Amino acid sequence: MTVPLDETTARSWLAVAVEEARAGLAEGGIPIGGALVGPDGTVLGRGHNRRVQDDDPSVHGETDAFRNAGRQPTYRGTTMVTTLSPCWYCSGLVRQFGISRLVVGESRTFTGGHDWLREHGVEVLVLDDPECVQLMTDFIAAHPSLWNEDIGEDEETDG
Amino acid sequence: MTVPLDETTARSWLAVAVEEARAGLAEGGIPIGGALVGPDGTVLGRGHNRRVQDDDPSVHGETDAFRNAGRQPTYRGTTMVTTLSPCWYCSGLVRQFGISRLVVGESRTFTGGHDWLREHGVEVLVLDDPECVQLMTDFIAAHPSLWNEDIGEDEETDG
Repeated sequence: MTVPLDETTARSWLAVAVEEARAGLAEGGIPIGGALVGPDGTVLGRGHNRRVQDDDPSVHGETDAFRNAGRQPTYRGTTMVTTLSPCWYCSGLVRQFGISRLVVGESRTFTGGHDWLREHGVEVLVLDDPECVQLMTDFIAAHPSLWNEDIGEDEETDG
Repeated sequence: MTVPLDETTARSWLAVAVEEARAGLAEGGIPIGGALVGPDGTVLGRGHNRRVQDDDPSVHGETDAFRNAGRQPTYRGTTMVTTLSPCWYCSGLVRQFGISRLVVGESRTFTGGHDWLREHGVEVLVLDDPECVQLMTDFIAAHPSLWNEDIGEDEETDG
């Protein structure tokens, strides 16, 4: 049975991703966290951005959660939960693996591909969570170059 | 200076990705390799799919090459080289980080998002390389379930 995706359920899953984002921040990293939740509501994997900690540009909150969930025979009925709207890289992950649902903490500070995912059949819920907004607003103000690096924005000539 | 992307140059870069694919195959893995090449033609990172070897579903040929290139201040002028048309996950990587060019070994056995990348301004060259086609044709015939797992295809009810 697949747990229905109502706002209360989504917020309880988001709390896991926020814990991950805060753990990343405490490690000196970029405060974005994710969780991959199974159809029955079990957290299959959780993780956070590790660009700074591991010097690894390939580990975003979502890809870390996906990796930590291990190999799965199917992603049908699963939900990707992320504190921030997924970038194209992480949106592509959701689409390719047929992850059914997406919970986004906020999309004010950055908007990636969540509308594109909705167009391609993913059930998307954007929570506009004030704690997630605050985490990123503070981080971007303090570390603008690091943030641009994480989303592949050229600083010299933005575009 | 950025090296022009002609077919001879592209084939010489593809040879690096093919070496990676063959290394992956020799390790018992899925034979897809990648390389991230700098504007001047230097190989910044190379890698291959590690789903089987590392039990890690997040490591495709392209993401491994990207990871092994380490943190880069910009991807402008770089080329992602891959033995197989990039899946949505890896296509999203190319788009998000502003990787300028994409060399695809073949897109017969699988077609991902390379047309979508072209629409979004990436210079794309598909080489239709017989060695790349053979590698994947043989692999898919021998390990269909593993291949479906790698691209997130449900076996029970394909869709």
